[in-house]
Formats: sequence, C-alpha cells, structure tokens
Amino acid sequence: MASERIWTAALVVIGDEILSGRTQDRNVAQLATWLNVQGIRLAEVRVVADREEAIVEAVNTLRARNDYLFTTGGIGPTHDDITVDAIAAALGVGVEHHPDAMATLTRYYETRGGLTEARARMARVPVGAGLIENRVSGAPGIRIANIFIMAGVPHITAGMLDALTGTLEGGRPVVSRTIGCWVGESEVADILRATEKAHEEVAIGSYPFFRDGRTGANFVVRSADPARVDACLADLTAALRGAGREVIDDGI
Amino acid sequence: MASERIWTAALVVIGDEILSGRTQDRNVAQLATWLNVQGIRLAEVRVVADREEAIVEAVNTLRARNDYLFTTGGIGPTHDDITVDAIAAALGVGVEHHPDAMATLTRYYETRGGLTEARARMARVPVGAGLIENRVSGAPGIRIANIFIMAGVPHITAGMLDALTGTLEGGRPVVSRTIGCWVGESEVADILRATEKAHEEVAIGSYPFFRDGRTGANFVVRSADPARVDACLADLTAALRGAGREVIDDGI
Repeated sequence: MASERIWTAALVVIGDEILSGRTQDRNVAQLATWLNVQGIRLAEVRVVADREEAIVEAVNTLRARNDYLFTTGGIGPTHDDITVDAIAAALGVGVEHHPDAMATLTRYYETRGGLTEARARMARVPVGAGLIENRVSGAPGIRIANIFIMAGVPHITAGMLDALTGTLEGGRPVVSRTIGCWVGESEVADILRATEKAHEEVAIGSYPFFRDGRTGANFVVRSADPARVDACLADLTAALRGAGREVIDDGI
Repeated sequence: MASERIWTAALVVIGDEILSGRTQDRNVAQLATWLNVQGIRLAEVRVVADREEAIVEAVNTLRARNDYLFTTGGIGPTHDDITVDAIAAALGVGVEHHPDAMATLTRYYETRGGLTEARARMARVPVGAGLIENRVSGAPGIRIANIFIMAGVPHITAGMLDALTGTLEGGRPVVSRTIGCWVGESEVADILRATEKAHEEVAIGSYPFFRDGRTGANFVVRSADPARVDACLADLTAALRGAGREVIDDGI
C-alpha cells in the first residue's frame, strides 16, 4: 500500500511577460496536471518579475516548505534570462558551464550557425546541478537539490516534464470525480456542506458557470482514497436527486 | 506632468481548482492588462489553496508592500468559499452582512426563488468594508483598506474591474512597443543587451517562438516614458537591420 504522506510541490513562474498581461500562462495548469499523476500536489504558485531579489525570496521560501520546487521561464540566451544566476544566489553557490550541456548545445547548433557566447549561456548552471533532458529544442532543464528549473515556453516544458515522468517520489495520486447539475450552486449549498462534513479526507469543490443562458454547476469530489471518493459521490448524488435535482454524470 | 512614482498591485488567486489543474486561470492576464491602463504595475501574483492560513499569509505579506491588493475567487455561496472570513482574519476584524449587499441580493433573487441563507452568505463582508458593483450577476465585490475582493469567474471579475475603472490613483501607464524578427533570439542577444544598456528606464523583453516550422522572436520595449520607448525602439531596429535582419513592425 502506498504511503499516506502527502507530497507537495510549489511553482515559481518567472517572467515580466506574465505580469504585464502580454502572455497567458499555461505552465500552472500543465504542471498541476502532470504532478497529479505523479502523486504530488501543487500546493502554491508565485509569479515574480525578472528581478533577482524577487526570485531569491520566492525560491528560498517555497523550497523550504515543499518537497519539490519548480520554476518556469528565464533560462534562454538573452539578457533578461536571469533565473540561473538568481537560483545560484538563493542557494549561495556559483555558476558554471555544465560540460554535458555544452556538448549538447555544440551538437544542436552544429548545423545552426555554431555555438556562440550567447548560446553558451544556456549551458550555465548553479554549481553542482544536473540536467533535465530537453527533447524539443537544444537547451536542457536543470535540477539542483529539490529544485527543477524548466523553460518558459509551454511545449518545451512539456518535453522536460515528459523526461521526468516517473522519476520523482510521490504518494497516492489525488483522484477526482465530477458530477453536474443545471442548478445555481446557492440552491444546493446546504447539501454540499453536509455531504462534505460527513465524509472525512474528501473535499468537494463547487464550480458554477453560465452557459447558453442557463445557470449550472459542477461538483468535484477529490481524495487520495478512491473508495472515499466513490462513497462521497454516491451520497452526494443521492442527496441531490432526493432534492429533485437531475444529476449529470462526469459533469456538464 | 504625471507623477514619476511607480504604483504597484499584487494579486492573490484563491482556488484549489487552479492548483489542481482543473481550471485555467484567466484573471492574471485580465487584471494585468486592466492595471496597465490605470498606470499601476502588477508586481507579483500568488496562487493559494482554499485554506485560511494560506490566504492570510499571502494577503498580509502582499498588502503591506504594494499600493493595492486584489484577490480573485472564493466569494460564492458554498462551503469552499472562505475568502471573506480569511481576509477578515488577516485584518483582525469580524464579519458582518452588509446592508446594501443584502438589499442587492434580495432584489436579484426576488424572481429567482428568494434570498436563502446560503445566498445571503454572499452579503458577508469584513467589518468596515465597502462594495464593488457587480454588473453581471448578483453578488458584489468587496473593498476594504487597499484590498479589492473579486470574483473567480473571469467575466464577473471583468464587470467588477469595469466598475473600478478610473477610480484608483496610479502613475503613468507603462507603454510598450513590439517588433519581431524571424531569427533565433540567441543570434541577436548581444544587440539586445547592448541596446537595453544604452537606454535608461527602458526594459527590452525577448520572447522566442516556433511557428510554421520557423524560429522567430518578438522584442518588447517597455517604459513609463513614451519618448524613451520610441528612442530605444529606433536604435534596436537600426541595430537589427545593420546586422542584416528584417524587422517586422508591431511584431510577428
């Protein structure tokens, strides 16, 4: 039987482009979904500017209170890519060119104009770090202590996560099941509250929406224990039907 | 002439649904874009779980070091909506039913089954708070001290922001202009670095992408001073053209 210990991760999204509204972040949802499968919960996220002291504060706070810390963004070849230096500063170590990363980049750029000084910046890592394979483009991700330094471009991060799949220790994945009702959530709030209270180690989330001029809500039952999810879902469905509500399996 | 003081805001996104990957956040980009127009910079964002201590920590840290603090999520009628209680706890005040909110909700639900106890929860505010008009659905947003408590559903938040437009003191809006090149950013990293260094109070962001099998990058020049943006953009364009690159106005 898997451990009942809950494993947590945090994410620091590094990038003025997110805070300016120019770019819609995709990495929070992508990492969250991937972590669920690994049995790790995304516990908190911070989005910080491209400033060393902001990165250092977030990294040092979050790495201390989570099992894993991920960062996205700021590892490219240009002057605004300061993630590696900031994380080295957070850890109190220097920065070096990683020989394997240099070899990878030399190969990658062999047919693309050669390894310039700017491109070699992408081989820089905090002293003592290992690499995370990048199956999409040249520059690798970086792993040091419990920190995983990933790309900002979502499909490159996806490739790095793919390379990490199954390598991180986790607990039981959180299981969730969803049902839906064409109902305002306020009309069934008492049922939701009572059902959650009657079921330990289960959380019920209520997510209202407006669609095609109608009010509806999805109710998501979550737990690390699939049997508890099933029992809670059965009670919730029965209670909603008992109140005359039509329940739609798997949500609306 | 407008003040040179920089006004900042922070955002706390409250919601297990974002951290579980179930819901893609839209409020960071929406708020950032709106704040830019008000002359206020979004300085930092935290995404926290539906847990009172997590909300209290984020709210108390960020409200102290920013001019404004916004929260999104957790103000509905159900058991998992704990934002009002958490912010009252952060401020050390009680919670009361706001009479104007009660009146608004009573009117709103008059033709929708009446104001139940669950629905009246949406009139609860930290003691001393004012309301933010909700032009989309019934329940208002809440303002207390420098904190603005908004909905989680993006189009409801949009309506609340619309009601706030022009009411918050800010500085000069950040102006940004974009150019693009079909080039790997690493090939022009030296030009970017040198150009930024030569222009004070201007930031150049470099945003690479892969599209239709080609590598490109957009370069975004930002400053609160439009004249500095124009001067920097002119120098950057000239330097890129001098290096034989085609420059595409307004980006790719």
